[in-house]
Amino acid sequence: MRVALIQHAFKKNKKDTVEFTCKMIKEAKEKKAEVVALQELHQDRYFCINENVNNFDLANSWEDDIKFWSNVAKENNVVLITSLFEKRSSGLYHNTAVIFEKDGTVAGKYRKMHIPDDPGFYEKFYFTPGDTGFEPIETSVGKLGVLVCWDQWYPEAARIMALKGAEILIYPTAIGWFDGDSKEERQRQKEAWITIQRAHAVANGLPVISINRVGKEKDDMSMLDGIRFWGNSFIAGPQGEILASLSSEEEKVLIYDIDMKRCENVRRIWPFLRDRRIDNYEGILKRFID
Amino acid sequence: MRVALIQHAFKKNKKDTVEFTCKMIKEAKEKKAEVVALQELHQDRYFCINENVNNFDLANSWEDDIKFWSNVAKENNVVLITSLFEKRSSGLYHNTAVIFEKDGTVAGKYRKMHIPDDPGFYEKFYFTPGDTGFEPIETSVGKLGVLVCWDQWYPEAARIMALKGAEILIYPTAIGWFDGDSKEERQRQKEAWITIQRAHAVANGLPVISINRVGKEKDDMSMLDGIRFWGNSFIAGPQGEILASLSSEEEKVLIYDIDMKRCENVRRIWPFLRDRRIDNYEGILKRFID
Repeated sequence: MRVALIQHAFKKNKKDTVEFTCKMIKEAKEKKAEVVALQELHQDRYFCINENVNNFDLANSWEDDIKFWSNVAKENNVVLITSLFEKRSSGLYHNTAVIFEKDGTVAGKYRKMHIPDDPGFYEKFYFTPGDTGFEPIETSVGKLGVLVCWDQWYPEAARIMALKGAEILIYPTAIGWFDGDSKEERQRQKEAWITIQRAHAVANGLPVISINRVGKEKDDMSMLDGIRFWGNSFIAGPQGEILASLSSEEEKVLIYDIDMKRCENVRRIWPFLRDRRIDNYEGILKRFID
Repeated sequence: MRVALIQHAFKKNKKDTVEFTCKMIKEAKEKKAEVVALQELHQDRYFCINENVNNFDLANSWEDDIKFWSNVAKENNVVLITSLFEKRSSGLYHNTAVIFEKDGTVAGKYRKMHIPDDPGFYEKFYFTPGDTGFEPIETSVGKLGVLVCWDQWYPEAARIMALKGAEILIYPTAIGWFDGDSKEERQRQKEAWITIQRAHAVANGLPVISINRVGKEKDDMSMLDGIRFWGNSFIAGPQGEILASLSSEEEKVLIYDIDMKRCENVRRIWPFLRDRRIDNYEGILKRFID
């Protein structure tokens, strides 16, 4: 499976950003990618950096956005993983991955299930927690376990996708540093982010793809200094081994041929699914066991 | 919390191995360790390398072993994590961690829940899967989430320990390479093993300790060339950051002061427990969802 990850910065506005992305998708297609994965909320700036009711206007184009990216998938004849701002109803919004088939039809949608809320990442203000559950999306290239950003910290999400037959996990992401943090803290954060996603590959014996944006984005309400998105998009194999990765600054199309047959071999030598103690996991369904 | 990990090889026999371990525990005590963690089945060779009914004799000393290590804990005034071969009844054996309080009393036991079975690691022949569940053990230094080896590949075990209030995870382990595997494969295996345990630290915001043996041990039935145990015992902090580690060959007491207050701070910036979608995790209780 030849995949392409597209890591880029927000440009001046949505129009310029989308144009840039489309140019990169064309490049991915020229290099014969079958699957193209975009970063979280790739059309625009990361607007959750503050809480501003006017930002809900950004979801007014939801229906048009779907039409637009459907065309892009079709024109390039690729399976396309997009990440959009869904207006479901007045006052009801989701952070939604829309997956398009090569012919432009919608293969499936995933509404981000785990919603963060930290200074600079005010997502609970904008996004209603998803109600799609953790369902892999059937496509012509396989069953894709598409999850979004904060989901990546939850082994439960990865596991359920794997148990439902996902052949690969794909995480569109928007995560970054505050410049005020020490070099050591920034290193720890980036490493933790890579480590836990590699671990999902290990625990479930399948490849993991993560796509993150780059560039510093300012807070237009000036409550924060802004976020420096750390890129480092990567592809890991079923033993968690890094197969390909990008730096914390470059804008690039990362192409890689994933050997999907290796998963079968890895699961034979490490048959973790065989030995799960499902008779003793009910505690997982509790908030805390006190 | 000053912890000591003791990484060593099997000596000629049980007597020599235990003597060596006791010398190292004394060294840990001299360096003011409060908690001493030993590797999996540390008293003897890793006998699961083949299936031999005579090896069940090694569990005949179970009651005496408990008395012995109780004395060691008391003499050194340390919380001691041991890993023993439990004879529970005729034909019923467990791979059991016994945790001793500083005064030599048994603080708790944990029977290995996930049992592997791979060529050279024939544990399903020897060990009945544990029935203790995933219960942290209350001690004078805190609640210890003791798990054993194969458990380390299961995010569920780590999560349940954390939800039950474990303040640290401790994994006595016996894992190694076959010399016949390529350098790249050995590297991937070791990295996967470290990565998934670091990820348990990240996912749950607590430190993780792993103690593995070193040295090559032969198969006395000569079905295999033997196992080269890869050591690499380590301590990771609550962001998965490696705080201290050993090489793949050295025999050593690794001492480290873990800052337990940092866990609180890390869980404040990364409040993963807050956002778990327990309403959507029931799939975890299934073998597979087909």
